[in-house]
Amino acid sequence: MPGRNFLFVPGPTNVPDRILRAMHRAMEDHRSSAFPEMPMTLFRDLKKVFKTSTGQPFIFPGSGTGAWEAALANTLSPGDRVIAPRYGQFSHLWIELAKRLGIRVDVLEVEWGEGAPVERIEEILTADKQHEIKGVLIVHNETATGVTSDVGAVRRALDNAKHPALLYVDGVSSIASIDFRMDEWRVDLAVTGSQKGFMLPAGLGMLCASQLALSKLDQAKCARAFFDLGDMVRSNATGYFPYTPAVLMLHGLRESLNILLEEGLENVYARHQRLGDGVRAAIRAWGLKLCAKAPKWYSNTVSAIMMPEGINGADVIDVAFRRYDLALGAGLGRMAGKLYRIGHMGDLNELMLLGALSGAEMAMRDVGIPITLGSGVAAAAEHYRSTAAPLPPRPGTPQSPDAQQPASPAGASVGGKQTRAAVKA
Amino acid sequence: MPGRNFLFVPGPTNVPDRILRAMHRAMEDHRSSAFPEMPMTLFRDLKKVFKTSTGQPFIFPGSGTGAWEAALANTLSPGDRVIAPRYGQFSHLWIELAKRLGIRVDVLEVEWGEGAPVERIEEILTADKQHEIKGVLIVHNETATGVTSDVGAVRRALDNAKHPALLYVDGVSSIASIDFRMDEWRVDLAVTGSQKGFMLPAGLGMLCASQLALSKLDQAKCARAFFDLGDMVRSNATGYFPYTPAVLMLHGLRESLNILLEEGLENVYARHQRLGDGVRAAIRAWGLKLCAKAPKWYSNTVSAIMMPEGINGADVIDVAFRRYDLALGAGLGRMAGKLYRIGHMGDLNELMLLGALSGAEMAMRDVGIPITLGSGVAAAAEHYRSTAAPLPPRPGTPQSPDAQQPASPAGASVGGKQTRAAVKA
Amino acid sequence: MPGRNFLFVPGPTNVPDRILRAMHRAMEDHRSSAFPEMPMTLFRDLKKVFKTSTGQPFIFPGSGTGAWEAALANTLSPGDRVIAPRYGQFSHLWIELAKRLGIRVDVLEVEWGEGAPVERIEEILTADKQHEIKGVLIVHNETATGVTSDVGAVRRALDNAKHPALLYVDGVSSIASIDFRMDEWRVDLAVTGSQKGFMLPAGLGMLCASQLALSKLDQAKCARAFFDLGDMVRSNATGYFPYTPAVLMLHGLRESLNILLEEGLENVYARHQRLGDGVRAAIRAWGLKLCAKAPKWYSNTVSAIMMPEGINGADVIDVAFRRYDLALGAGLGRMAGKLYRIGHMGDLNELMLLGALSGAEMAMRDVGIPITLGSGVAAAAEHYRSTAAPLPPRPGTPQSPDAQQPASPAGASVGGKQTRAAVKA
Amino acid sequence: MPGRNFLFVPGPTNVPDRILRAMHRAMEDHRSSAFPEMPMTLFRDLKKVFKTSTGQPFIFPGSGTGAWEAALANTLSPGDRVIAPRYGQFSHLWIELAKRLGIRVDVLEVEWGEGAPVERIEEILTADKQHEIKGVLIVHNETATGVTSDVGAVRRALDNAKHPALLYVDGVSSIASIDFRMDEWRVDLAVTGSQKGFMLPAGLGMLCASQLALSKLDQAKCARAFFDLGDMVRSNATGYFPYTPAVLMLHGLRESLNILLEEGLENVYARHQRLGDGVRAAIRAWGLKLCAKAPKWYSNTVSAIMMPEGINGADVIDVAFRRYDLALGAGLGRMAGKLYRIGHMGDLNELMLLGALSGAEMAMRDVGIPITLGSGVAAAAEHYRSTAAPLPPRPGTPQSPDAQQPASPAGASVGGKQTRAAVKA
Repeated sequence: MPGRNFLFVPGPTNVPDRILRAMHRAMEDHRSSAFPEMPMTLFRDLKKVFKTSTGQPFIFPGSGTGAWEAALANTLSPGDRVIAPRYGQFSHLWIELAKRLGIRVDVLEVEWGEGAPVERIEEILTADKQHEIKGVLIVHNETATGVTSDVGAVRRALDNAKHPALLYVDGVSSIASIDFRMDEWRVDLAVTGSQKGFMLPAGLGMLCASQLALSKLDQAKCARAFFDLGDMVRSNATGYFPYTPAVLMLHGLRESLNILLEEGLENVYARHQRLGDGVRAAIRAWGLKLCAKAPKWYSNTVSAIMMPEGINGADVIDVAFRRYDLALGAGLGRMAGKLYRIGHMGDLNELMLLGALSGAEMAMRDVGIPITLGSGVAAAAEHYRSTAAPLPPRPGTPQSPDAQQPASPAGASVGGKQTRAAVKA
Repeated sequence: MPGRNFLFVPGPTNVPDRILRAMHRAMEDHRSSAFPEMPMTLFRDLKKVFKTSTGQPFIFPGSGTGAWEAALANTLSPGDRVIAPRYGQFSHLWIELAKRLGIRVDVLEVEWGEGAPVERIEEILTADKQHEIKGVLIVHNETATGVTSDVGAVRRALDNAKHPALLYVDGVSSIASIDFRMDEWRVDLAVTGSQKGFMLPAGLGMLCASQLALSKLDQAKCARAFFDLGDMVRSNATGYFPYTPAVLMLHGLRESLNILLEEGLENVYARHQRLGDGVRAAIRAWGLKLCAKAPKWYSNTVSAIMMPEGINGADVIDVAFRRYDLALGAGLGRMAGKLYRIGHMGDLNELMLLGALSGAEMAMRDVGIPITLGSGVAAAAEHYRSTAAPLPPRPGTPQSPDAQQPASPAGASVGGKQTRAAVKA
Repeated sequence: MPGRNFLFVPGPTNVPDRILRAMHRAMEDHRSSAFPEMPMTLFRDLKKVFKTSTGQPFIFPGSGTGAWEAALANTLSPGDRVIAPRYGQFSHLWIELAKRLGIRVDVLEVEWGEGAPVERIEEILTADKQHEIKGVLIVHNETATGVTSDVGAVRRALDNAKHPALLYVDGVSSIASIDFRMDEWRVDLAVTGSQKGFMLPAGLGMLCASQLALSKLDQAKCARAFFDLGDMVRSNATGYFPYTPAVLMLHGLRESLNILLEEGLENVYARHQRLGDGVRAAIRAWGLKLCAKAPKWYSNTVSAIMMPEGINGADVIDVAFRRYDLALGAGLGRMAGKLYRIGHMGDLNELMLLGALSGAEMAMRDVGIPITLGSGVAAAAEHYRSTAAPLPPRPGTPQSPDAQQPASPAGASVGGKQTRAAVKA
Repeated sequence: MPGRNFLFVPGPTNVPDRILRAMHRAMEDHRSSAFPEMPMTLFRDLKKVFKTSTGQPFIFPGSGTGAWEAALANTLSPGDRVIAPRYGQFSHLWIELAKRLGIRVDVLEVEWGEGAPVERIEEILTADKQHEIKGVLIVHNETATGVTSDVGAVRRALDNAKHPALLYVDGVSSIASIDFRMDEWRVDLAVTGSQKGFMLPAGLGMLCASQLALSKLDQAKCARAFFDLGDMVRSNATGYFPYTPAVLMLHGLRESLNILLEEGLENVYARHQRLGDGVRAAIRAWGLKLCAKAPKWYSNTVSAIMMPEGINGADVIDVAFRRYDLALGAGLGRMAGKLYRIGHMGDLNELMLLGALSGAEMAMRDVGIPITLGSGVAAAAEHYRSTAAPLPPRPGTPQSPDAQQPASPAGASVGGKQTRAAVKA
């Protein structure tokens, strides 16, 4: 197919050329005396992204699923009890994974479209006088429904209940896109992956552990080897890894961190807010509804759009992909067919999104949803125009001719701002 | 800036990843016994793109300007007379280049927005009973105004006049995007570059010479060394070059030809027609006018959009570039400020263009042009929807969850086409 | 440092440019209907490399360590007993990993420098009338000592003992470099990684399971989630993965398999044999000894070179790396300091190795080992010369001038084979 | 063929990965307001490489041949007289090119293997009382024979003769590798290309003009368009180019200049001296002779090795290329068959060269030259060892195991420097 694929699934996200370039390099000896310098900078800068000064970040070849496993297996023992609200496919899958490790999970069922039920959590923890509950598992941004939960409020629930359970947070589709505050919220295990806000190819699972979490390593009896944090702690101390790391991904992560820190994390969050607001304006203009039940749940990285009666979201996705080269996300689990999702995270700007919205409009029309072509695009564009940063003055006189002109100009100046024409054409 | 730049100048165009990959390689000895095999395939396949069986293509490190010079300097002598209509900045620049080589150019002034004046050409040639005129210089697609001329008609004018002048055609922004027929039109020297329809980085000038043109090499007295075709003829015969060729660009060209021939040239032309029609629908919806005076001149690779009274096209371009990361083309020469240009050639699809059109809408509004946001996008999208190829049946059951799900599904099937959900989520 | 690093650790190995190119691409939706086609070809072609028609290959984001874990955790339960000879750091580490999973390992201590003790294994299995032993763990090529074991003989030991234990083989540094025959040897779980014979960057763990092994999944009680084979079996059936795969690595693997199958596996093995023979000739010429005790143990992918009394191998490595940009492998575990290792596997040719041998010579001299400079290089070169394939006839007349020559030749022919000069210069 | 090609022709040279990475990027609008910033840094830093503060550098899509033409065509008129010694194929070709432009060249024939005949030049200039001679053309490093001339001495000859002729210098295979001093030697036009010392792919011709040279533009009557310096002067003033520049090559050049300036030009020259001395030691050890007649002519970027009676250098090259994947340079013009050449410039280190020397040894033996395998390698290695820079102290404790080790170490410390082993293995 000519032209670029429009990748708007909620992960993997678009990998900036800078990152691909950084990864196009010869392999090297990861045991050499020169090697540790770079990984040490990764650990340092990952802490900035997790917003922690005391936590310790870890990098595994793997995926978010691996990081889920690492977080649990290193801090819990078979038979331990945790509580976990389920409000989407990813909270569901994490729960299932915990069960496989032998952990007992008290599932709090929540309507899909809502987020973490802070009051119920506080009640349960308050009632758990014996402190049998060892952990609380929260998906910060439920990618399946486009719902962002209030992790800070969950921390307050723990505090109010004076409960020592560890706070486990899946930040796979939030960290590096939506504000995340490890230290302020006293998150104990924060899980993420490479292929969302970090704008990297898939292939890394990352997590960050609080000192409290690290103090649990010895007593945690879940079996673990590849995902053992203790080995990592020992090797990482000198900038090495206990087994062969995915070296090119580390170089990619180095560039990812450069990009994030150059833009500034707060600017990154604000950009995602602004881009997300535009997408939501488009959805409103289409007369469609989000899966997220209330504005407080709106996700700035993914919007799940409910389909009208009689329309299967999978058909929108199919037409979008095969006819317009636009990749959208499907409804998952109990939401299968009922919605489709637009990812809006990572290395993204207004025009990329407007192109995607236009593609979504065409696909929706093609499958019979009676939206007005251009309506969503216009609403989003109006939002982007009205919130655009003011331009600094121009850096000198711009230029004009796009190709060959060895000789003297044909046209004379035509008045107005024609310095350019006078000089160049 | 986050996200990709939207490159919509009428060249350079977007380079497909396949081509960049093909060029990411170690240098090699271009004198080795293994080298010639690949260039030989370039010469073979370039002939397909020029639509010639008897012409000979040439590849220079350089640009379209260099190919202009090569075409003239190898076939003409100082003092020779040629005729050349001037209807835009690039026809102008070619004329100026010819003069620098000592060639006498009879310039036919044409209103910018129109194309080659076939009748006047026929009259002049008919009147030239002594055959003093040695060549006719035609810009097939005038990039500065978005005007495509009828080269076949120019050939008929030559034939009607029974005139032996060589037919020189600048196909820089047409060849490999708009139908070009070297043999059918008996073009003698066809000039092009790498960075337009060939989707390559800038860095090559290419041309194709008819056997008649090649028969003039010996008598042509313009000085030439780097651009000498005779040296090329001798070296190319065995797959070598008379001096160090731009080897990586040759590898890129190999991939470019693969891409063009895989899509099929007629499909490439049809795609450009369809994409261009959509752009023109957008411009109509905006209530704006093309520089091209009549539909027969409309270019499928670039649209030049006239600005309303009081608006400087340079301001649209500046806002588009600095605020929305969208690169548009400027008005050149006597058109400076009066228009801006959208390139729509090369490796492009609908959503890329719709994103660009949306960006143009925002920029135009920002500088005070009272267009309705979304209006052009809607018009173009309607065109693309209504002309989309029918989809083949789906290749099996699609898939759904976008990330981690090691465990069993949460949601059961919800009926309808939920095989996907049932299997995967 | 100017020039290329000479990477001669026994993994990671040099990544061919073809593979890096294949991995330099935009991310894509791994849930799209277009995605499965490529992974399906990987499964098909990996079977060729494992030499199995009935086994099933698996691809994990991870490393060889992860594949070790996957092999054991999916087929064994805590408390199960296995036997494992220990003859180097990697057999040691696999044993330790098994213990962490709760598996009881009967360790057979073997002198480092020897390989799998086939007779002892047969005795033990014969004595195990109750079939308490569930598995036999064999490292095919012990990377730490440069010893290749006879896996076929181990299979015969199992057969002679009529023992049903599963045969687990670590082929990390053998598969795709040294002949490996999954079906013929009835290996049940074959483990490998991406960064050795597959010439890929680090980041994948791969394994292949026999049908017998797969029949154990349900009864195996080791906890597993990320590394669960059952999830993989279900998703891979349609070309998908249970969680986000390392997509770029899959594209790299596609190219790796192309390269291996183009060269031909038997040719790949023969090349490693020939390259390894040259390295061993060099070591003999230096008057040094291999760690491998006898020719039957010699590894074609890595040579471990014993240091003379008073010399620390770490010093050779340090000087080689920091002074000559040559990466060599260290002695591990009980061999630390006693040897250094040269990896000779993957994308390698004679001159790369001769450069590395020359660097090793300089480094050894620098730290006081009294070898004769050039002696090893000469011995290896003599081997390569004497075993070089005969050249096919030249493809036509070669070429000569390396740069600019627009003009006619200076020198006339000087006789002899000067057709080249006559034509080109 | 497995492994890397050993590219040891005297250009193109090996392109560092850093440069290839820098060139792997999307195209951009070379007329945008953001574009000029980068080219401006190229002009600034190229001046450092040419060692000029008053000269002006120029960058053309093209090759060294194009830069030859640009240098002459912009400063001379048809019929002008220049003098030029001819001592190799490239001085020959430049002379021929000058003739094509209509320039009268007084050729000073010099034995191939010697350099610029300073005394004869001074005599001729002194005798030219009318100052009819407008220029002196000198090839600084004659790539065909491996001879470096003394440009400073040529300048003194001009000064002694009090002659105003312009000094034209071909520095294609010297600049950025061998010390070149534009200002000190008052060179008027210095010509170079991208694919030698600049370590770039082929595709650029570069030159630097003195203010005196630039003052000749108006009176120079050679026809020129693509290579016109006046257009360049005007456009470059603001960071633009008169026609589409080879943008990716400019990005590559940016990285090339970064690399050169990071290493430091004097260090670059010293490295070439040291590498060249090693090659010459090898040639002596082989008992062969250089084409260069005396040490004062020895080139640090290319060695031309004379073949014994009865041996055709082309056969060495053929065997080296097809059997050992080693690219060597051929004898050119009157030297065809009489020698072969080893390029030793650009991104090169000791081990790359030692591998190439070893390959040359094998190829020479294969065609019947009775050299001792390893002899040249040993001589070069001895030179590199004895001239290696002292190592700084080690940056902390190095590391060891090359792959998977999740568990505790097998071997205990073995004393001595085994901290590494104790910690890691």
